[in-house]
Amino acid sequence: MMASPSGGEDGVPRALLEHAVAWSATNGLGMVVNDDKGLFTSTHLPFSLLPYALPADSYEQTKVLAPLFNTLVDRISRDGPWLKEVLKDVLAGDDFTSELVRIHETIEAEGGPRQPVCLAINRSDYMLHVPEDGVTAPHLLQVELNTIASSFGCMSALTARLHRHLLSRFGDEPSSAGKAIRDHAASVGIDTTTTTAAGDGGLGELIPQNPTLTALPKALAEAHKCYGKPDAVVLFVVQPGETNAVDQRLLEMNLWDHHGVRVVRMSLAEIEASGVLGEDGTLTVDGGAVEIAVVYFRAGYAPNDYFGRAEWDARLKLERSTAIKSPSIGYHLAGTKKVQQVLAQEGQVERFLGASESAAVRRCFAGLYSVGPDGDAAATADAVAHPDRYVLKPQREGGGNNLYGPELKSKLDAGGATDDELRSFVLMQRIFPKTQPAVMVNRGKCVSGDSISELGVYGTYLGGGEGKELLNEYAGYLVRTKMEGTDEGGVATGYAVLSSPIVGGRGKAS
Amino acid sequence: MMASPSGGEDGVPRALLEHAVAWSATNGLGMVVNDDKGLFTSTHLPFSLLPYALPADSYEQTKVLAPLFNTLVDRISRDGPWLKEVLKDVLAGDDFTSELVRIHETIEAEGGPRQPVCLAINRSDYMLHVPEDGVTAPHLLQVELNTIASSFGCMSALTARLHRHLLSRFGDEPSSAGKAIRDHAASVGIDTTTTTAAGDGGLGELIPQNPTLTALPKALAEAHKCYGKPDAVVLFVVQPGETNAVDQRLLEMNLWDHHGVRVVRMSLAEIEASGVLGEDGTLTVDGGAVEIAVVYFRAGYAPNDYFGRAEWDARLKLERSTAIKSPSIGYHLAGTKKVQQVLAQEGQVERFLGASESAAVRRCFAGLYSVGPDGDAAATADAVAHPDRYVLKPQREGGGNNLYGPELKSKLDAGGATDDELRSFVLMQRIFPKTQPAVMVNRGKCVSGDSISELGVYGTYLGGGEGKELLNEYAGYLVRTKMEGTDEGGVATGYAVLSSPIVGGRGKAS
Repeated sequence: MMASPSGGEDGVPRALLEHAVAWSATNGLGMVVNDDKGLFTSTHLPFSLLPYALPADSYEQTKVLAPLFNTLVDRISRDGPWLKEVLKDVLAGDDFTSELVRIHETIEAEGGPRQPVCLAINRSDYMLHVPEDGVTAPHLLQVELNTIASSFGCMSALTARLHRHLLSRFGDEPSSAGKAIRDHAASVGIDTTTTTAAGDGGLGELIPQNPTLTALPKALAEAHKCYGKPDAVVLFVVQPGETNAVDQRLLEMNLWDHHGVRVVRMSLAEIEASGVLGEDGTLTVDGGAVEIAVVYFRAGYAPNDYFGRAEWDARLKLERSTAIKSPSIGYHLAGTKKVQQVLAQEGQVERFLGASESAAVRRCFAGLYSVGPDGDAAATADAVAHPDRYVLKPQREGGGNNLYGPELKSKLDAGGATDDELRSFVLMQRIFPKTQPAVMVNRGKCVSGDSISELGVYGTYLGGGEGKELLNEYAGYLVRTKMEGTDEGGVATGYAVLSSPIVGGRGKAS
Repeated sequence: MMASPSGGEDGVPRALLEHAVAWSATNGLGMVVNDDKGLFTSTHLPFSLLPYALPADSYEQTKVLAPLFNTLVDRISRDGPWLKEVLKDVLAGDDFTSELVRIHETIEAEGGPRQPVCLAINRSDYMLHVPEDGVTAPHLLQVELNTIASSFGCMSALTARLHRHLLSRFGDEPSSAGKAIRDHAASVGIDTTTTTAAGDGGLGELIPQNPTLTALPKALAEAHKCYGKPDAVVLFVVQPGETNAVDQRLLEMNLWDHHGVRVVRMSLAEIEASGVLGEDGTLTVDGGAVEIAVVYFRAGYAPNDYFGRAEWDARLKLERSTAIKSPSIGYHLAGTKKVQQVLAQEGQVERFLGASESAAVRRCFAGLYSVGPDGDAAATADAVAHPDRYVLKPQREGGGNNLYGPELKSKLDAGGATDDELRSFVLMQRIFPKTQPAVMVNRGKCVSGDSISELGVYGTYLGGGEGKELLNEYAGYLVRTKMEGTDEGGVATGYAVLSSPIVGGRGKAS
């Protein structure tokens, strides 16, 4: 399957492609198409026709790391003085983080949170870095840790099922579809002759089960149970008029089907308009008829979710309430880029975790440096000399804000020693993953080529305060794949596609 | 919720509507929209927001009738002389049935079918008739018996799940959505105060489980097992270029997931081009690489599926093979309107079934009469005098061909005693079901009003010849609802919607 700039079929067997798209339609792997046909038209979510090969030891490593990052986030969030010290540098250059810090301080000044229990649904994003020395084995480096609104978890469970289905259904079939699958597996280092004999599911068994669809609802349900009122609901904070919410809806449906927990969906502005905070901190909506047990943010992670004071007032109101937040303001702040950079400094992870845990976590840290006045001069100079080896990141979630190459160089050149705004940026070692062949499917059309993939790993955590871990679990994975050379990576926009790992220890080294 | 000719929201709570549409998107209740956005755009299948009230005794009756009709079809199909005698009247007026009869005769002349095992996936369609006397209780009358290509079985399982979900999720909620559901239940005679206390699922438990998604794949898998070659596949005979196949794909995916049986999809023309019949009757496709164990017709039921001789040759080739057909040509012919009409005559059902079974089957027969030369003169005269009490049906599947009112009258007036074509028609008592309020949802928009519903009941049967019943089961249901006064009823076109029964024995009589 060769790359084709025209987006043609590239020799992908029609039967395989149509089967994959049909599977998506019958299994909910869809997204809303907001076009003139109305808001209720949808198509399949862009997916990789075949999986991404991940070394078995890297896959196992991510399952170990997830609960460690959960604990780390919880402990950071409860260390107000440390957070304040770390984030003071970004206040001048970053209005958004400043607002979050102000809410944190307001709550502290009011005597601390009324609800000590916090729910984290974290996602640590990694890439498999191939060291330039050509000797050291490829290993995972952390791109970032997301502590708010991590999306595509449920859709990733479906993508894994799709891949398991395709590999088991066609993997040992003497058809052109079967051959295409075996050729792909071989090209990414999976030995199909031994693995197809492994079990009933054939090659499909090499796609690990992805527990997101049970683990994420379970975490919300545990928080709901912890709140203690069966009739209270989980509030999903969503963007106004949000329609492409299939991933969120899957979570909502599973929460009802398996836990009997109800969900209401509201925007921050709607919450400000109708949410009422009782004297005891109880939060109700709908004229007092509905009590909120858990607040789950799927919006509110970026400046453009705050249209004015109403949204910030809503955020403060939620934070002041006794509802369990996912995330609390502390968890949100623990996920900032600045915190990530400071943790990479000597002794900082060790402040929160034991020696062996810290060592395990550090193994996935990329080089991370401060810039601007009092920044890391040596790293800054190296980045100016070799801009392609770094990426310059502002305190922003959601992608599309990072600076690369010439842009990075000129930003550092212009204000390296004097620009206060630069303090809010973080300079990061650029990760160079090995490419793999992929077939991206978007609206039923295939594009083949060399791709790179990013692995996201979910962790769920229910913290009771004072170190009490009421829940601390690995909660599944997400793989996003994009063609080599593409800087942007949105799945909904089709630049990236969802995939899943094929973990083939029996094959040749990948 | 009042009728609104403008198709407005009619007071349907927005949260309820959006939740229902979101459930459809996450659960595969979709259909392809064949528009200029490409073939991979889809929307939810039109559905009724709330279920159709069916008396408990009628629901139980359909479960008893399904296996009786299965047996009846099998026995009729194996009585060649009787079929020939019954169908001789329609040959002159109906080319399509004539071709089917010719295939049947060719096989008989060649010594009978090489494969005695036949698989039926039947669907008996009923309406709940309200006698004009105002005294006799409403009871089910059979509209027709479908023995080929009965569709929407799998989608009906999803619709039942949707209704169970909505009723349990919102049924006892103090919201406007909850009120809308309780109001609907009350308006169709369900007592919500007692039923919500019945069990954990609340009102949702009044929607019976619909086993189509397990029963239909099971029947195909049993036939596949009966054929005896695990690597052989099930051939779905589909329309050329068919894209809106979500219902078929659900069946295909379940067949693989739960039985490990593979499906290939081909049109009749493709089968004629690539299907090879071995000397022993073995049917293979794909250059001999793939052997066909079971042929499942989802096309080939109507004249417009046969573009020329190639399709008819393919049909004969399939019939000559040792593959197990669903349906065999005999099963197909047993489902013709003429057979239905003749069975209604004294002594005819009794030819095939025992006394008590015949009585049970007869209980759902509407008045059915022959027309044309030698037709039933009394019934013909009554129909001319009261055309609104009858419907005139040609030998056609798929709807849209029936004559009503003035058209019926003029057809009978013109050729009642002389027109040979009329012999191929059947005159049927018109069924007058009681209307119920309904909310039809189509592309996210609601229309409320008085509706009528048709209940389809699936039966699966694997007949081994000489009366051997290898499988004979009730296999689930389908409810299609349309607004009163709508003659056409296509679900894909939005004139009708899928629904499910709510069987509320505890309520007031409906």
